[in-house]
Amino acid sequence: MDLDRDVTVVIDAMGGDNAPSEILAGVKLALDHTPGIRIMLVGLAEIVDPFAAECGASVVAVHATEVIAMDEHPASAVRTKKDSSIVVGARLVAEGQADAFFSAGSTGAAMTAATLIMGRVAGVMRPAIATHIAMMGQPCVLLDVGANADCKPEHLEQFAHMGAAYAEAVMDIAEPRVGLLNIGEEETKGSLLAQAAHELMKEHVPGFVGNVEGRDLFTGVADVVVTDGFTGNVTLKLIEGTSKVLLGEVKRAVASVPGSETCGDVMKAAFGKLVAKMDPESYGGAPLLGLNGVCIIGHGSSSARAVASAVDVSVRAVRGRLTERVAEKVSSAR
Amino acid sequence: MDLDRDVTVVIDAMGGDNAPSEILAGVKLALDHTPGIRIMLVGLAEIVDPFAAECGASVVAVHATEVIAMDEHPASAVRTKKDSSIVVGARLVAEGQADAFFSAGSTGAAMTAATLIMGRVAGVMRPAIATHIAMMGQPCVLLDVGANADCKPEHLEQFAHMGAAYAEAVMDIAEPRVGLLNIGEEETKGSLLAQAAHELMKEHVPGFVGNVEGRDLFTGVADVVVTDGFTGNVTLKLIEGTSKVLLGEVKRAVASVPGSETCGDVMKAAFGKLVAKMDPESYGGAPLLGLNGVCIIGHGSSSARAVASAVDVSVRAVRGRLTERVAEKVSSAR
Repeated sequence: MDLDRDVTVVIDAMGGDNAPSEILAGVKLALDHTPGIRIMLVGLAEIVDPFAAECGASVVAVHATEVIAMDEHPASAVRTKKDSSIVVGARLVAEGQADAFFSAGSTGAAMTAATLIMGRVAGVMRPAIATHIAMMGQPCVLLDVGANADCKPEHLEQFAHMGAAYAEAVMDIAEPRVGLLNIGEEETKGSLLAQAAHELMKEHVPGFVGNVEGRDLFTGVADVVVTDGFTGNVTLKLIEGTSKVLLGEVKRAVASVPGSETCGDVMKAAFGKLVAKMDPESYGGAPLLGLNGVCIIGHGSSSARAVASAVDVSVRAVRGRLTERVAEKVSSAR
Repeated sequence: MDLDRDVTVVIDAMGGDNAPSEILAGVKLALDHTPGIRIMLVGLAEIVDPFAAECGASVVAVHATEVIAMDEHPASAVRTKKDSSIVVGARLVAEGQADAFFSAGSTGAAMTAATLIMGRVAGVMRPAIATHIAMMGQPCVLLDVGANADCKPEHLEQFAHMGAAYAEAVMDIAEPRVGLLNIGEEETKGSLLAQAAHELMKEHVPGFVGNVEGRDLFTGVADVVVTDGFTGNVTLKLIEGTSKVLLGEVKRAVASVPGSETCGDVMKAAFGKLVAKMDPESYGGAPLLGLNGVCIIGHGSSSARAVASAVDVSVRAVRGRLTERVAEKVSSAR
């Protein structure tokens, strides 16, 4: 990892439910915490100019006269709004003026713009969205979590290479262990897709540990878990949903025990620790892997902290040579 | 529901990690709690004869000289072990001597035997395994959770009819709301399978509420949720895994708070309540829907309580005319 390399990150000032205030606050946090960075802040002049003036040389304002709304059709918005913050932002990376792009705006538009404008790494068939599953211990990377609802076995094999590149570049894992999400441990188990992907991964993916099941996402048996975008997206939402419901049930169960009032402070402290530990914002967003340049898609509700985390992940990805590693792994696998 | 109807349930005395002791204890519990039942207990003579003699007229011993082990290949075991408890048990239902069949033995063998010997309801393309998702409030029924890893849209439509029949017959829901597990609420979302299934279900499934997401399994928006057996099985194991890991994390977080020792009793009581509420054993097993007769597949680790619950569910299914309802819904949908 080239720790000295200066990194330029493009931030979409207009994207997300809390834009621009949380986005700008996040840029400040990032400048305080991450050395060696430069931010290119893209958005309406009246928003980005005063902020850049206030921050000095580390923030460059880039004007965009349009904004893509959350509910616009992604592809047509990207096609028609050529001067939107998302399109201008992706173009800065494509033109080599910046290394990474972050937007908490429309996920579909950000993905479409990044894919079309930054372009795919040579040989990559389908870019994929990765996410950290971080409930306990060492987090694992799950992909695809929604870019590709229908996949072929060879797509899953490539997701394995891209996920491994991410684990190496960003998580500092020298030889990532890669698993295939399936419904049984034996290699003859699962759908036709899973069976065929298992065959390919067994042959072509270094560090392949075989099939893993849903529960294994938390047990540390794999650093990278590969699945199709349909199953991955269901998985992601299920983990969020189950966690939320279960924590609510724990609170209710505790409250229903006579005498539990005396434990209020203990419970509050414990839940605070737990929520901090599970906080998806500590990763700032989901990397879109397979592109020429780093791209992090933020949640619409991104807070300042999430923005700063996304900048941190972007910097690690650039310094860890994420794009180059994806290219190397994908080309050497053929 | 015909509450007076006597129901005969076949129990495989040899199936499961805790057989025969927990199975026999479960039969006793069931006889105590569920009126109007008769048990046909199938297994080795030295096990079933003394137990039946002890129980009197409500338990009939049926001899089977063979046992299918958990690790045998299901199809070949069912083919070669004609006098195994699983094969003999399924045959009793097929011959009309009993109404329902329960085994906690090899899931694959029980499914294979039930499907081949009891046979499918006319028009049913693929039997499906259903399960209760019971984390909070009114449980919902999820199917398929593993019988069919690869599905076509028309299979999913039939799962909807069978799940609705189950909700009516066993859960006393007059007009079940049926959802399709998908990765977005809009009908154009999802895999090609999900999109095509949505089209079919919209047209042919009464009470269709559209797409539901992973988190909706707990929010009561649907009584029945339909998916393919791959996604369903991943879902089931994820809920189990997430719950287990999260409860462990809660315990650790509480223990890490200074002064938490004083809350030990409260936490113990709260967790006891919670675990009882979430206990999958209160449903006893997973119904295999679409067969001529009721079939409940028990978990290998079934306790006496799970066996008694499975008998209770079987009785409700028979008295609620589950098989007839499946036949009506499937035939009227074409």
